[in-house]
Amino acid sequence: MKHLKLENETCYDGSQIEPYWAFKTFGIKDSSIVSWTGPMEIHPNNLIDFEDIGIEIKGDNMLHFIIEHFDSQPADLNLCYHRQRIFVLIVKDLLNDWGMVTSREGDDLFFDKGNIKGKLSVSIATCSVSSMKIHFALNLTENGTPADVETAALLEAGLSIEASHVEEIAEIACDKYIQEISDIKSDITKTKVF
Amino acid sequence: MKHLKLENETCYDGSQIEPYWAFKTFGIKDSSIVSWTGPMEIHPNNLIDFEDIGIEIKGDNMLHFIIEHFDSQPADLNLCYHRQRIFVLIVKDLLNDWGMVTSREGDDLFFDKGNIKGKLSVSIATCSVSSMKIHFALNLTENGTPADVETAALLEAGLSIEASHVEEIAEIACDKYIQEISDIKSDITKTKVF
Amino acid sequence: MKHLKLENETCYDGSQIEPYWAFKTFGIKDSSIVSWTGPMEIHPNNLIDFEDIGIEIKGDNMLHFIIEHFDSQPADLNLCYHRQRIFVLIVKDLLNDWGMVTSREGDDLFFDKGNIKGKLSVSIATCSVSSMKIHFALNLTENGTPADVETAALLEAGLSIEASHVEEIAEIACDKYIQEISDIKSDITKTKVF
Amino acid sequence: MKHLKLENETCYDGSQIEPYWAFKTFGIKDSSIVSWTGPMEIHPNNLIDFEDIGIEIKGDNMLHFIIEHFDSQPADLNLCYHRQRIFVLIVKDLLNDWGMVTSREGDDLFFDKGNIKGKLSVSIATCSVSSMKIHFALNLTENGTPADVETAALLEAGLSIEASHVEEIAEIACDKYIQEISDIKSDITKTKVF
Amino acid sequence: MKHLKLENETCYDGSQIEPYWAFKTFGIKDSSIVSWTGPMEIHPNNLIDFEDIGIEIKGDNMLHFIIEHFDSQPADLNLCYHRQRIFVLIVKDLLNDWGMVTSREGDDLFFDKGNIKGKLSVSIATCSVSSMKIHFALNLTENGTPADVETAALLEAGLSIEASHVEEIAEIACDKYIQEISDIKSDITKTKVF
Amino acid sequence: MKHLKLENETCYDGSQIEPYWAFKTFGIKDSSIVSWTGPMEIHPNNLIDFEDIGIEIKGDNMLHFIIEHFDSQPADLNLCYHRQRIFVLIVKDLLNDWGMVTSREGDDLFFDKGNIKGKLSVSIATCSVSSMKIHFALNLTENGTPADVETAALLEAGLSIEASHVEEIAEIACDKYIQEISDIKSDITKTKVF
Repeated sequence: MKHLKLENETCYDGSQIEPYWAFKTFGIKDSSIVSWTGPMEIHPNNLIDFEDIGIEIKGDNMLHFIIEHFDSQPADLNLCYHRQRIFVLIVKDLLNDWGMVTSREGDDLFFDKGNIKGKLSVSIATCSVSSMKIHFALNLTENGTPADVETAALLEAGLSIEASHVEEIAEIACDKYIQEISDIKSDITKTKVF
Repeated sequence: MKHLKLENETCYDGSQIEPYWAFKTFGIKDSSIVSWTGPMEIHPNNLIDFEDIGIEIKGDNMLHFIIEHFDSQPADLNLCYHRQRIFVLIVKDLLNDWGMVTSREGDDLFFDKGNIKGKLSVSIATCSVSSMKIHFALNLTENGTPADVETAALLEAGLSIEASHVEEIAEIACDKYIQEISDIKSDITKTKVF
Repeated sequence: MKHLKLENETCYDGSQIEPYWAFKTFGIKDSSIVSWTGPMEIHPNNLIDFEDIGIEIKGDNMLHFIIEHFDSQPADLNLCYHRQRIFVLIVKDLLNDWGMVTSREGDDLFFDKGNIKGKLSVSIATCSVSSMKIHFALNLTENGTPADVETAALLEAGLSIEASHVEEIAEIACDKYIQEISDIKSDITKTKVF
Repeated sequence: MKHLKLENETCYDGSQIEPYWAFKTFGIKDSSIVSWTGPMEIHPNNLIDFEDIGIEIKGDNMLHFIIEHFDSQPADLNLCYHRQRIFVLIVKDLLNDWGMVTSREGDDLFFDKGNIKGKLSVSIATCSVSSMKIHFALNLTENGTPADVETAALLEAGLSIEASHVEEIAEIACDKYIQEISDIKSDITKTKVF
Repeated sequence: MKHLKLENETCYDGSQIEPYWAFKTFGIKDSSIVSWTGPMEIHPNNLIDFEDIGIEIKGDNMLHFIIEHFDSQPADLNLCYHRQRIFVLIVKDLLNDWGMVTSREGDDLFFDKGNIKGKLSVSIATCSVSSMKIHFALNLTENGTPADVETAALLEAGLSIEASHVEEIAEIACDKYIQEISDIKSDITKTKVF
Repeated sequence: MKHLKLENETCYDGSQIEPYWAFKTFGIKDSSIVSWTGPMEIHPNNLIDFEDIGIEIKGDNMLHFIIEHFDSQPADLNLCYHRQRIFVLIVKDLLNDWGMVTSREGDDLFFDKGNIKGKLSVSIATCSVSSMKIHFALNLTENGTPADVETAALLEAGLSIEASHVEEIAEIACDKYIQEISDIKSDITKTKVF
């Protein structure tokens, strides 16, 4: 599994959740996690969560992660959602280490401290017959987030997380996730079954 | 999925990790999580982790959880280890809420604060053709833990967690886990696939 | 698994066989069986059985059932067809109880008594990566059924089944099917495997 | 899938439910259904249903069917129970054709007419990693059935089913089941998926 | 599994790789292998290998094989690629028997002898939820093969393979492949598992 | 996937086919292929092929390969037999390169040239819930092979293969197999599915 960090600001328009995006765009022939910062403006055709239809999902500056797994054939949406939860929990844990205590509901993180309170993240998981995909993104600023949703943002939570830390946070999150998936594969090889 | 709390102190001897233990012992015809407090003394024949062979794994008083899932047929050890990680992360999160900050390596939790430092938990996952099983246990005291392992314990970490809280912590952990598995099933029903 | 009975007459045009129809139309976040009465006029684009291409499949008044399962990931067309057969056999059994003896060929029921003889039902099963779908429908009247197929109908078989019974028959069929799937899940939890 | 009819009376002692019994005993290299008549006396070690532990399951003369499927790898206990239900429903239907109306609860058939009332059949399903097994048996006489269970029997139900019909009933049940599994495989090849 | 040999020259335009092609075109309700000779000119929309996008894949006269499997539900791209490799290895072996020694890289065969050197074949595998598909084709002549790829051809390799042999080679390749898949199914029925 | 070459002569007694042998013996936490030379004397309890019961399977000096895969969960005997065939075909190909032309029936290689004619290899595949295992071995000499089977041997086929080449042959076979499995995983990441 490979990690690719995009240097250029990239808009998440929902096309990146499509299977094979990492191969078609960057030539990655492996399971992968791609991270970058940039706005989010999802084209209605690219909505994955049927509950989101008709809802604005956007932000001017977010930290994005796109994960694709090819290791389980046929792909399994149930496994994919378990991995999404593990990724969210890893990020929650990591933000804790940076002094940002969040709460979690399903695949969403929330921040609530002092007068700052709101939804910090968006996420979705999906799959095709052969690959499992996850998108997770954290608000870096509240600019451009939907008017009708209370949001919070990494860099505007009144904490010591600064723009210069974002890259490091992304790096650690990706490393920890890749390590986790690898550890699970390793654990399987030493486990007695019935 | 059902939660059963055992009232009597029960020794975890490793037989509880066997498939169908919850049905054969308590008649539970469902996926289940059973929690209780008691010692751990694993019979060598009941070791699941081949790396543990020849190693003492024990404790005089621990908070135990045994999870069994029948919802994925055939059972899948990979999915089972993902669920184990989710359970461990839920517990880690919960201990955080109680003021006990831990670190995690794979399926183990560690505590390190002041002069108290050590391994707080043990865990294993396994499966048969038809069920997935997880054991997770937290030291309540350091009594009886292996002499050659630095351990820490929930009630001896110099924090405000008291014996009277253990039941509540167990209850919340089980509730959150059951909710998580249920939420994932629900998320699947509203997700567009490719 | 939930049962939803539609009160309004609804035309089965084949769009209801698409995955997520129950969630997108009624917000059901679960496996489900939806039943209703109404005509059938399948749009050619919505044909699932390649053998049906170019064939008229229609009726003016039918009792429809749409089943969707999310409990097996990834979805499995083989399992889905087994469930279809179980549903057809449950309906056949139920009609027997109401004095209507039918014969079965695959997923079709036939009636043959006195001068009334013909195909009583239509059915198809299909799946996406994440859900399994079944459509089954019984002719209530012969009006509007294809001219080139001998058909029979529940309310025109010369038996004592009346329009006022249809709702009860639908209710029992759905209950029995939901119970069956639930019983199977329960049986798994008490079965020794090798 | 092959049907083998045993000519000699054979006691069902539970060993026949073990995987590969048909290959090891008769050299059948295929999925198979083996039928025969004979007593049943299950050795306690061979019990598959944990609910049956400590219960007598026996009869002096029964019509037995042992089914083994290798067509789904890895074997799937859920699919196996669906096939068991289909087999039971095929037998129920067939008995109907012979004038014997039964009711069904899960995998059990019951008879209740005049002063004869009771359980007509026993059944279990199980699997190993590579094969799915089903045992189903009908009482031919009530002799030797457990004292504490009300039983009924094919040849003692006061109907016109005679000993000379048993072979034909077995033959038709097996043919219909093999045909059903084959039809499902065929249906899959002509089904549009999403 | 059935083998169908097409008598008429047919152009492989990539539409034949679509699921259900054999059923929709020839009414085959089974797993199948269809073989024929003819040109190849793949419509860009029908490209399966994302690496081939923008590349010419063509030839004036090739021996084509299209394989479709329905025996594993849900379909599994990993298994499909294993079968593709087995087919390529069977063909390589067979060409050896006809005096044509080739080398293999993944799913491609190469010929290199005297002054004739080049890629002899093209292949791809893919799947839908319910079927697994393989295309494999051998150049019969070098006419019409891409200008920028060194190619070799069965009938122009300076060996004793003549046009009149092509049909026999195709026949043997198909027979051996069908036999292989059948042998594997048979081997499963006699194998002890753990 | 790792390759381990054992330096010491080791007797294949059938215990090496058990799941986790590579972890329990050598601590390998990965899919693996272990190769070595030594005799074969299978303990009757360790027979995997039920057809081999009562048959002598032995040899004084053979080149052994034990493969274990953990990459597909749950393990799948069908996939395992496909991989076995691929390994046998890779070895057949490789022997060809060394001037030793063999024929293949299922998973067996045969040699037939001049007055030397016989079975060259033995093989079996099996699995547990979590791992897939393959044993393949080539006779190096005919000493100690069963009296009632015509055998051939790598070093006694009247060809130029010498004892000093065996290590190289084993090395190449393992490399090619590991490469093949890796190539298939890579191919999946660039394949459009339906």
